[in-house]
Amino acid sequence: MSALKPLQRPILVATDMEGCLVPEIWIGLAEKTGIAELRLTTRDISDYDELMQGRLKILDEHGISLHDLEAVIAAMGPLPGAREYLDWLRARVPLVILSDTFYEFARPLMKALDEPCLFCHTLTIDENDRIRGYRLRTTDGKRGAVEGFRTNGFSVIAIGDSYNDTSMLRAADQGILFRAPANVRAEFPQFPHCSEYAELISLLVECGIPA
Amino acid sequence: MSALKPLQRPILVATDMEGCLVPEIWIGLAEKTGIAELRLTTRDISDYDELMQGRLKILDEHGISLHDLEAVIAAMGPLPGAREYLDWLRARVPLVILSDTFYEFARPLMKALDEPCLFCHTLTIDENDRIRGYRLRTTDGKRGAVEGFRTNGFSVIAIGDSYNDTSMLRAADQGILFRAPANVRAEFPQFPHCSEYAELISLLVECGIPA
Repeated sequence: MSALKPLQRPILVATDMEGCLVPEIWIGLAEKTGIAELRLTTRDISDYDELMQGRLKILDEHGISLHDLEAVIAAMGPLPGAREYLDWLRARVPLVILSDTFYEFARPLMKALDEPCLFCHTLTIDENDRIRGYRLRTTDGKRGAVEGFRTNGFSVIAIGDSYNDTSMLRAADQGILFRAPANVRAEFPQFPHCSEYAELISLLVECGIPA
Repeated sequence: MSALKPLQRPILVATDMEGCLVPEIWIGLAEKTGIAELRLTTRDISDYDELMQGRLKILDEHGISLHDLEAVIAAMGPLPGAREYLDWLRARVPLVILSDTFYEFARPLMKALDEPCLFCHTLTIDENDRIRGYRLRTTDGKRGAVEGFRTNGFSVIAIGDSYNDTSMLRAADQGILFRAPANVRAEFPQFPHCSEYAELISLLVECGIPA
């Protein structure tokens, strides 16, 4: 692979969370709770609201509270090496995590990663600690955030692993795919791909972040 | 003072750095180096470029390198209580520090504050570690950043101490003055003012951040 071009303005890194820094939360919940239906994703049910309402109904039927979920998510922890990679990055450039998860789910993982800046969505919790609904902060928020950082004078490097990250990767000055499935890599050959944090750091250094 | 209104969308806090979290850097440099001219601010020389070129000329005449400055700034440290206040805040909401300082100066202070997300400007350093110039990331960047976060679906609380923060305070859903001089408080009575982190936390809780 040829070297990437050094970026010209101050660099900001925008990164996806699940798959890049922490495990896929719903898949982890399915595994740890033994409820197989929680494995379903937008690949199975394309309408996001239908998918989410189904997930919340399953949690409710099983009597699972937010507190129960927090304990399960805390036990997942970040991906091996993610903390060290983020520590390296945050000592060098501003970092914002752009995710379609919910603050209530992300909380224990953000604590384990030393409280980086996270943009995501919110849940509605009732007085019995049950999840009653969800609220998306905005539509296509990852791309919108990247565009906002660029308007504000940054050169943005966006990192993601899945199809729903590609609009922010295209909006960025430099997009990078990390541990992306073969079909995403094939459809977006313009983005370099890597699978290890050490390789990712090498690509970031090529973009101009100090080694 | 009457209670503030709880904000309706996910909250993001945007805060000024110097005076709010860390000492005024140029004043600290004047004190620690004994070079009185470094105390001059835009209140003395209204043209910012003229002021900055003068500061860089003084540093050069005294043979002061970036490395020298870093050691002086590291010794300043954050304001007493700032680290604990930021720890409280970052465990609850996304935080972005908006500052007109330079990344090269802020580095040791950001390390002491556990690497929060900082938007600021950059210096040009030569091969002898001398500061040769500066580059502003954008003009009126604080206000622009706040507007970008609002466009991206957040309710923004902006916190600042000085006149140059008031455009971002006005652009925010809720502006708060912290340790502001009397003239700024008098000119902007619409913004609540406080002088201690405990009071600031109380105001943030009124806005909807969990206690």
